[in-house]
Amino acid sequence: MEYRKIKDEDNDGGTLSNDIENLRGIGFSGVASVSNVPPREQAKWKRNRTVVTVALTFLTSSQAILIVWSKRAGKYEYSVTTANFLVETLKCALSLAALARIWKSEGVTEDNRLSTTLDEVIVYPIPALLYLVKNLLQYYIFAYVDAPGYQILKNLNIISTGVLYRIILKKKLSDIQWAAFILLCAGCTTAQLNSRSDHVLQTSLPGWIMAIVMALLSGFAGVYTEAIIKKRPSRNINVQNFWLYISGMAFNAIAILIQDFDAVMNKGFFHGYSIITTLMILNHALSGIAVSMVMKYADNIVKVYSTSVAMLLTAVVSVFLFGFNLTLAFFLGATVVSVSVYLHSAGKLQR
Amino acid sequence: MEYRKIKDEDNDGGTLSNDIENLRGIGFSGVASVSNVPPREQAKWKRNRTVVTVALTFLTSSQAILIVWSKRAGKYEYSVTTANFLVETLKCALSLAALARIWKSEGVTEDNRLSTTLDEVIVYPIPALLYLVKNLLQYYIFAYVDAPGYQILKNLNIISTGVLYRIILKKKLSDIQWAAFILLCAGCTTAQLNSRSDHVLQTSLPGWIMAIVMALLSGFAGVYTEAIIKKRPSRNINVQNFWLYISGMAFNAIAILIQDFDAVMNKGFFHGYSIITTLMILNHALSGIAVSMVMKYADNIVKVYSTSVAMLLTAVVSVFLFGFNLTLAFFLGATVVSVSVYLHSAGKLQR
Repeated sequence: MEYRKIKDEDNDGGTLSNDIENLRGIGFSGVASVSNVPPREQAKWKRNRTVVTVALTFLTSSQAILIVWSKRAGKYEYSVTTANFLVETLKCALSLAALARIWKSEGVTEDNRLSTTLDEVIVYPIPALLYLVKNLLQYYIFAYVDAPGYQILKNLNIISTGVLYRIILKKKLSDIQWAAFILLCAGCTTAQLNSRSDHVLQTSLPGWIMAIVMALLSGFAGVYTEAIIKKRPSRNINVQNFWLYISGMAFNAIAILIQDFDAVMNKGFFHGYSIITTLMILNHALSGIAVSMVMKYADNIVKVYSTSVAMLLTAVVSVFLFGFNLTLAFFLGATVVSVSVYLHSAGKLQR
Repeated sequence: MEYRKIKDEDNDGGTLSNDIENLRGIGFSGVASVSNVPPREQAKWKRNRTVVTVALTFLTSSQAILIVWSKRAGKYEYSVTTANFLVETLKCALSLAALARIWKSEGVTEDNRLSTTLDEVIVYPIPALLYLVKNLLQYYIFAYVDAPGYQILKNLNIISTGVLYRIILKKKLSDIQWAAFILLCAGCTTAQLNSRSDHVLQTSLPGWIMAIVMALLSGFAGVYTEAIIKKRPSRNINVQNFWLYISGMAFNAIAILIQDFDAVMNKGFFHGYSIITTLMILNHALSGIAVSMVMKYADNIVKVYSTSVAMLLTAVVSVFLFGFNLTLAFFLGATVVSVSVYLHSAGKLQR
């Protein structure tokens, strides 16, 4: 369960409620992009975009490696809710630390002040609700598909993110970029093929519907977060993150009370923690911040490419670390994903 | 053996020596294309191109279905050399019949007269030698790879054809079209994946070298044939075919004498023939003519796409005819091939 849970958060780009903000009155079509940024800032934004994309790729990749490592080391009986709470707390602390440095050097401005309006924070629960429904569905979908089948179906997230990105954020992809996006989905799925993958074809209609609904929920949550962050391009990302994560802390505190109150009371908050748990919490916190940064300086499409490439990197690194064997399907999938990355970039020139 | 042999001819686009003509003094870079055709002829050529491409796709597809059918019906003990000879003879007869009709309606002209120069026919044995070496290597490669592995490695033909098409015919593909060609190779291989495919990764260096040499020989023979046929765009294709196929008849007659002389003498020329054998010969003859036509009106790239799509069609039709199951790998491969076909066409606009 731990493995599946973390893998899933990984694909959603954050923990249960780490990417939440008030969306009311955002007016989706008016979402800002790099072109809305003052010219003198553009070079800095482009540099930031590269740095956060690379960081997200490596953090996601090392995240999956930590998962394999923890699985090898045996099962840890810690409370997942406490770990999630600590991830949110750490992200909050890091955002505040970054802000403190900025206040010291630049002073408090309209863009970097922490205070906000009720209007800005009041609809935080909406994306949290999306994630909640999706995570609930996750328990039910296993009545229809097995775990490897679920891993395969999760690649539908790629398509749903692309479609919702187009519909909700009203951003256009060229025809070549759409072709590249279909290839990304096919390539990732191919790379994950194993002898049991064919079972997914026997999935019944309710199973497919649930998988598609989950993909849409996941894609919508990602696109929603981007809309929230892009709404105020000049607003300091650390302030935006602080408000995203403080809400995450609240939701996870409630989750501890409901799910793990007895375990925490009897065995202590940190029961079952190990060095790997600590590393995973650190990694999840940094990955979560990287996801927010990618939403700020790039977009959901870049995020999807970044996590897909991370999946391939993980497999290659696992060969050296754990003696895994790469399959022919992996090489073929990796080739298709590589061509997709190229086409996404080549397709831009056509616009 | 029969299956493998016919499958292999299929990928080579013809039997042992059906695509042979004098190449001496052709000056590869000066190869003609549609643009060299007089303007009033261009519409006709484009129509022909569509017709022969569709014909090749359906003939190749039905060829593979005949192979499955013949395998189900049991093994046929006919001599492959006599069947190949009959294929060449039938192609010759069909070319002559088409010519007779043209002579009747248009009269004999410089372009459609059958007579040729020694200079034009003398180097016929060169591509025949290429096929001979390739077919010899085919027997040795099975010391290094198993049959499913060989099917996978044969997709290297796609890449070798693209590379030789570029180098020898000096025709350019756009970057998008190159990406599409890599995808075509990856997609075809993915569609053919099965539980034993991974063995191919254990292929030793000599096995890889042989596979690459075979792919180069096969690709070179195809590109060579295109160069021969395109050298004289105004020359009637039936005349070009006649000279291609008459040489094929001669080579196959020699093959009968060497390989199957005793069997033919003792059991008769047509021993072991059945209705399926007859249909296969008919199909191979028509496919062979379609390949020549595609070389005339289109090119090797179109031929590779055509036979790749045929492979996918065959699999789909086999579901209904033979109750085959399609794998997830097939759907993924078919998706990648479809996107590749789209990109090949979309990539043209960029030039």
